[in-house]
Amino acid sequence: MRRVMETLRSTKNGKNCGGPKVYQNEKSCGGSKVYQFVEALRSTKLCCNPGLQKSDIRPFVVEGQQVGLVKSEVFKQLLKYPEVFCIRDCEQTKQGVVELNPAFRDYNERTEQLEKVLRNLRLEGLFPALQGWRDEYFEVKSEHRALLKMERAATPLFGVRKYGVDINGYVRHPTQGLCIWLQQRSNTKETWPGKWDNMVGGGLSVGFGIKETAIKEAAEEASIPSDLVKNLVSAGCVSFYFESRQGLFPNTEYVFDLELPVDFVPHNADGEVQAFELLPAKECVERVFTPDFKTTSAPVVIDFLIRHGHITADDVLDFTQIVELLHVPLQSLYTYKTRLELVQKQKQQQKKLTGNEDTNCNCDCLQSTKPTENGYKNGP
Amino acid sequence: MRRVMETLRSTKNGKNCGGPKVYQNEKSCGGSKVYQFVEALRSTKLCCNPGLQKSDIRPFVVEGQQVGLVKSEVFKQLLKYPEVFCIRDCEQTKQGVVELNPAFRDYNERTEQLEKVLRNLRLEGLFPALQGWRDEYFEVKSEHRALLKMERAATPLFGVRKYGVDINGYVRHPTQGLCIWLQQRSNTKETWPGKWDNMVGGGLSVGFGIKETAIKEAAEEASIPSDLVKNLVSAGCVSFYFESRQGLFPNTEYVFDLELPVDFVPHNADGEVQAFELLPAKECVERVFTPDFKTTSAPVVIDFLIRHGHITADDVLDFTQIVELLHVPLQSLYTYKTRLELVQKQKQQQKKLTGNEDTNCNCDCLQSTKPTENGYKNGP
Repeated sequence: MRRVMETLRSTKNGKNCGGPKVYQNEKSCGGSKVYQFVEALRSTKLCCNPGLQKSDIRPFVVEGQQVGLVKSEVFKQLLKYPEVFCIRDCEQTKQGVVELNPAFRDYNERTEQLEKVLRNLRLEGLFPALQGWRDEYFEVKSEHRALLKMERAATPLFGVRKYGVDINGYVRHPTQGLCIWLQQRSNTKETWPGKWDNMVGGGLSVGFGIKETAIKEAAEEASIPSDLVKNLVSAGCVSFYFESRQGLFPNTEYVFDLELPVDFVPHNADGEVQAFELLPAKECVERVFTPDFKTTSAPVVIDFLIRHGHITADDVLDFTQIVELLHVPLQSLYTYKTRLELVQKQKQQQKKLTGNEDTNCNCDCLQSTKPTENGYKNGP
Repeated sequence: MRRVMETLRSTKNGKNCGGPKVYQNEKSCGGSKVYQFVEALRSTKLCCNPGLQKSDIRPFVVEGQQVGLVKSEVFKQLLKYPEVFCIRDCEQTKQGVVELNPAFRDYNERTEQLEKVLRNLRLEGLFPALQGWRDEYFEVKSEHRALLKMERAATPLFGVRKYGVDINGYVRHPTQGLCIWLQQRSNTKETWPGKWDNMVGGGLSVGFGIKETAIKEAAEEASIPSDLVKNLVSAGCVSFYFESRQGLFPNTEYVFDLELPVDFVPHNADGEVQAFELLPAKECVERVFTPDFKTTSAPVVIDFLIRHGHITADDVLDFTQIVELLHVPLQSLYTYKTRLELVQKQKQQQKKLTGNEDTNCNCDCLQSTKPTENGYKNGP
C-alpha cells in the first residue's frame, strides 16, 4: 500500500502533471488528477505478473491448484514446517513451488494445520501483516471449490486473491448534477484509519454472498433502509495488484451503484465511520487523489465516473489504458496448473516420438494420490 | 474471426454447457450462454501476448515506437522491400523487429512509402485481408502522436490497434423491463454481411473524434435525431484480441449507452442496415451467441448487461474472469520501446560496474538520428 501511496504522492509533486499533450479538455474531468492515477496504476502494473516474471515469488499450491503467491521472505520461514509445506523446484515448469501437504484429508485439516503455523509466525513477530490479526476468516477457493479458510490478516503473505464489495451511493442533484456520497473511516479502524472512502465497502467473508454482503454493509455502515437498498444495481468489478511491506494484494472489488433520493443522509450504525459527505463528481476526482483518500478505493470511484460519462475517451487520451488498468488480469497470476499440464502434455508427445521417458523432473504435485513419496513427512 | 466463431460454435455443441457447478442461477442470466462466452474469450486469451510469447510475431516499429505486430508470413513478404522496412534481430531484447525506415521524413512520406508496398502486395494477391481494400484510412498513432495513415484493410497484417465506437440503444419497457435495440447488417456489407449487431457501431477514421463518430454513426445507421442523441452517455470501453486468416485484431471499442423513449423506432439512412429489432435483455444474451450475431460485437453487449446488473457475480461464478477478459491489457503487446530502454539501462549499469562496453548488439533503432548506418539503403 505504501508504494502505491508514495507513487501517488510523487506524481503530485509536479513531475508528471500532464499538460496539453495528454489532456484535450482538462477542466471538464480533472485531467491531471486522472493522469496521476494512470501513473500510479502503471507503477503497480509493473509488478502485475510476479508469479511469472519474478523468480522470488512462487505459486502456492493446494490440492494441485494454485491459490496464491509466496515471496522468498515468507517461504524461507515456511521451510521450518516441512510437515505442513513442501517447498521445492519444479523442473517441468522451471519454477519453485510452495505446496500445502496433500496428505491433509479435508477442508478442516488443511485449515487447522495452516493456522498452527500462522499462530507460530505471529508469535515470532517477523511479519507486520500478522500483527493485524483479526480472528476473521477468509475462504480460499479454487475453481469454485472451497479448499480451506485462512485468517484474513495472513492472506497478503500467501498472495491469495481477495474479494470485496463497494457501493457507489450517488444523487442526481437538481443544481449540482451527479454527486457521490463518501464516508470518512473511523480513527479506530485497523486499516486506513481516518481516510476518506466509498460510501459503503467491506470484504467478503465465509458464508456470505456478494450482494448479501453489500446489503449487510449498507445497513451497518450507512443505515440504508431496505426500501432504498432494493435499488442496488450490480455494475461489474475492478481488479488491481500491488505489493507492500504487508505482502501481496491481488484484489477484486465487486461494485454496486445505488441512486439515492436528494434528501437522504446516510448515518453510521457500527462505529466504523466517523462522517459522510456528498461531493459533486468533479470534486470527487480531486478528493480521490489527496493523501486523505484510501488508495485502494480509488479504482472504484474512477470506474464509476467512467461508466457514468464523467471521465471520457475524448477528455483523457490515456482512457483505454485507464480502463485496462482497472481490470488487471489477475487470473494470469494463478496459472501454475495449466502450465504444468501443458509441459506434461508436451513431454508425453515427445516421449511418443522418441520412445524415451524423461526422468529429470521431481515434480508430481498433480499426482496427489502419492503424497508420501513426495518428500513429505507423514501427515499428522 | 473464424477461430473465435468456431470456438463459439464448438462450445455450443454441448461440450462445455456449464451446468450447476458453474451456474448458481442459470435461468436469470442465460448462464450457459455466458459460459460459452467465457470459453470463447479464454481461447482468444491464449494468444493474448503474441508479441512476447510467440517467436513468429515481431514488433512493428515506427520512429522508435512500437505501433504493431507482424507475423512471419507477412514479414517474409516485407523482406522484399529493404528500402522501406528493416527486418532484423535485436540482440538486446532477444526479439526480431520490423522497422519502418526512419529516414522517411514525415507523416506523408511514411504514408506514401507504406502504401506503395501495400498496393504491390494487393496485386500479388497473397493476403486475403487486402482483397477487402476500402480506400479508407486508419491513423497509426503512438503516445498520442500521429505517425502515418494506413489503408484500413491492411491494419490486421500489421497488428495495429484498432478503435471503434458502439452505441447500446436501450428502452426501459413498462412490462418487458430492460430491452435492447439490435440492427441486422445489410447483406451487401464487406464484413459480417447479414449478421445481427449492436444498434449503432463504426470504426474511428482519420479526423473524427470519438463521441463525434458515435453521433455521426447514430444519424447514418439509425436516424437518431439530435434531441435524443444528446442523451448519449460515454460508458468506458472493451478490449479484446484475436487472430484469424485475415491477420491480427487487437481491438478496442468505445461504448456509449443511449436510453430511448418506448415509442422510438430507429430506421436506417445509409443502406448499411436491413432491419432493427427490440429485444428484452434476456433474449439478447441468447441472440448474441447464435451464429447470426457478429462475434466481435458480443463483448459490447455482455459489458452492457454487466454494467446494468443483468449479469451479476452472484449469478455467474466466472464473473471476475469475464470482466477481466472484456478488458484484455492490449497495451502489454506494445512494450518494445520500454523493454529496449530497460535493457539499455541495465547494460549501462553493468558497464559502469565492469568498465567494459558490450558490443554484441546491432540494434540501434532508438538512435534514429543515424538511419543510414543501420543497414538501410538510402531513403527514396
